[in-house]
Amino acid sequence: MVELRPPRGFRDFPPELAILRKELMSRLEQVYRRYGFDPLETPAVESWEVLAGKYGEEAENRLMWRFKDPWSEREYALRYDLTVPLARFIASHPEVPLPFKRYQIAPVWRHEEPQRGRYREFYQCDADIVGSPYPEADAEIINLLIEAVEALGIQSGYTIKVNDRRVLSGIFEGELGLRDPLPVYRAIDKLDKVGPEGVRAELEKLVGVPAALKIMEMLKSSGPLVEAAKQLLSSHSSGPTAEGARHLLEVAELLKRPEVVRFDMSLVRGLDYYTGPIFEVVLDRPAIGSVAGGGRYDNLIGLFARRQVPATGVSIGIDRLIDAGLEVGLYSISRRTYTQIQVVNVTPDSFSYAWRVADLFRSWGYNVRVDLNRSGQDAQRRRASRLGVPVLAFVGPQEVSTNTVTLYSSATGERVMVRLEEAEKALRRMLG
Amino acid sequence: MVELRPPRGFRDFPPELAILRKELMSRLEQVYRRYGFDPLETPAVESWEVLAGKYGEEAENRLMWRFKDPWSEREYALRYDLTVPLARFIASHPEVPLPFKRYQIAPVWRHEEPQRGRYREFYQCDADIVGSPYPEADAEIINLLIEAVEALGIQSGYTIKVNDRRVLSGIFEGELGLRDPLPVYRAIDKLDKVGPEGVRAELEKLVGVPAALKIMEMLKSSGPLVEAAKQLLSSHSSGPTAEGARHLLEVAELLKRPEVVRFDMSLVRGLDYYTGPIFEVVLDRPAIGSVAGGGRYDNLIGLFARRQVPATGVSIGIDRLIDAGLEVGLYSISRRTYTQIQVVNVTPDSFSYAWRVADLFRSWGYNVRVDLNRSGQDAQRRRASRLGVPVLAFVGPQEVSTNTVTLYSSATGERVMVRLEEAEKALRRMLG
Repeated sequence: MVELRPPRGFRDFPPELAILRKELMSRLEQVYRRYGFDPLETPAVESWEVLAGKYGEEAENRLMWRFKDPWSEREYALRYDLTVPLARFIASHPEVPLPFKRYQIAPVWRHEEPQRGRYREFYQCDADIVGSPYPEADAEIINLLIEAVEALGIQSGYTIKVNDRRVLSGIFEGELGLRDPLPVYRAIDKLDKVGPEGVRAELEKLVGVPAALKIMEMLKSSGPLVEAAKQLLSSHSSGPTAEGARHLLEVAELLKRPEVVRFDMSLVRGLDYYTGPIFEVVLDRPAIGSVAGGGRYDNLIGLFARRQVPATGVSIGIDRLIDAGLEVGLYSISRRTYTQIQVVNVTPDSFSYAWRVADLFRSWGYNVRVDLNRSGQDAQRRRASRLGVPVLAFVGPQEVSTNTVTLYSSATGERVMVRLEEAEKALRRMLG
Repeated sequence: MVELRPPRGFRDFPPELAILRKELMSRLEQVYRRYGFDPLETPAVESWEVLAGKYGEEAENRLMWRFKDPWSEREYALRYDLTVPLARFIASHPEVPLPFKRYQIAPVWRHEEPQRGRYREFYQCDADIVGSPYPEADAEIINLLIEAVEALGIQSGYTIKVNDRRVLSGIFEGELGLRDPLPVYRAIDKLDKVGPEGVRAELEKLVGVPAALKIMEMLKSSGPLVEAAKQLLSSHSSGPTAEGARHLLEVAELLKRPEVVRFDMSLVRGLDYYTGPIFEVVLDRPAIGSVAGGGRYDNLIGLFARRQVPATGVSIGIDRLIDAGLEVGLYSISRRTYTQIQVVNVTPDSFSYAWRVADLFRSWGYNVRVDLNRSGQDAQRRRASRLGVPVLAFVGPQEVSTNTVTLYSSATGERVMVRLEEAEKALRRMLG
């Protein structure tokens, strides 16, 4: 017997889960469109050189699905996120009018050690604005994020943590004297994974004990965005920290729900390419840590193009959210099929009539199943009820001879025999 | 400068193409749902052993994107189609109620030599019925195919070619005495690619000159499905050919549009796993050959499970159809954005009002853009008109002071200044 499961870290989604996933992704897509974003699609496979040098050492050496074409020896990798492919696209399409607002909802692949909520194939739901250096672009991304989180059914009990890479670099480089803060950011970014003690241990290795202590202390700084930015400005009148704080202050003025947005110095983001505001959405319940994150990356497109093009955006991860949401009751498997009507064929003789009835109901736009297994009436009903099909349409000798159908709504228990030409009205009543 | 294009045979889809693709795939999805199919999602990556031995030698040795996990030495491959993963899923989920009707619309990867209309990443739009051995399942697939093709905008000028692997094996094995007809099917399947002379040359190598001649003659047999099946039955009263013909005759009786369905002996399908009826959709215009194909594969799931589970299904390929459809005018780039309203900010002072107006319009469900680049009015209008945004909403000092907005419909040229609370009615009129 050969292997029957998907590879480790990969999953099959049976209809009841695929339907839930589609529903949630479609809600995100609606929000993205409402904010004026349009779809872009990039391939699953990228040339290795496109991805190399963009995500940091760990990603590149341990997490990338990298492989060689056995025929040409060319090196490829499965895409690691949707941001670098976007940057490549923009660089190669100088004709695209800016700002370019695109969304992409698609799987990415990372060679993670699989565990609860961590997969090797997972979806990213991204929205990015390319071509605006202004705080209004970052504010629009955060407002979109607020609506997106709420569209996922989370009306409260979430926080959008905000920081700015310039604020961080002003402090880490300017004040603490670090030459390369990126390894420090990556260490701090593991706070959720390894806890404060773990982060401190790694920081001590990177910068020594006194600096590590200072950093750990500093990371505790957090508060409402406007106040935090003003405080930073009161202690820094120029330099990158001030520049970042001023940008955040302008962002703060444009927010839909300022009360859910908080400055948090411990938010640093692990990826190398951020240059300005960064943000993450953290949920109280389910307590899965960050469910979305993003920020400004004004230099990434410049790695591909001769021109600098500013950009900012966000990525929402729905896989862990769905897992945890199902556990805490935020989501439920409420729909096992899109089918609205099961035509139940009562006797073998009535099959061709049942077939015509199914066809008629489909022509009215309904999703319809009809028996394909020459099953008895009971088996057909059992199958329909197991799937939760809301309406049964019985067809037997009596219906055939009177050109009728007997409709039964499992929700209300209503049962009615109607002439075929009147069935549409009855179905509309039963199915809305 | 690094490589900016996607890898050879892979593509980016900018918004105007992504919107068209989404629209066509969504129409197919609607048809699949109307016929009672539900979504299943399987991973992009499969264990090599799952795919090995399923598609024939050429596919396995030359076309599969196969690679090794550098850490575990495990072998994987990108999925080659959506059918084998479905078979694996069914085999590992004996609890799934049969018949199981699933659709999956997703990319697959083949290491083809890229050329016009042939890509290394392309979408398959599949619908399959698992668990019914009966002709009504095959008939339902063909009826779904008819509606699917029409949903893609092709109302006429297409043919669904039908044959049956049992009809073929009765003739090739029983009458011509071939021990293994699969290489012969693969040779015949290249008719579109290499022409009749090419096929004959390959057949001569496989079976010798006299048999090749006989086969070439036999392939010319075609005609209306009912007549062809009856003719086969008149010359074959038992054996696989008769069995196949009887099955096709029952299929024929359940077809929506029998006039578009034709028996064609030259239709053999290249894949190894078919066992019963097979079919392909051929378009007159655009003349791209087969746009969809499928058939019955009653033994494939048995390769994974200890039980035999009959199945039948179809795969629609939209990539070549879209390419060719754009060339012959079947499709056009009619929509470059989902955005319905561009809020045009006339002076810098009115920005925060413009921001609020955009937010209000979004709360009514409209897709809205607002300036994020501190651009002048003209630049904002040019950008909106380049994208084809149907409504402009002007906001300047006058609108701010009177709590109004000036709406302009680019379709009708209508321009009207309305109070904010009356804007919804005006927008509904302009945007439907």
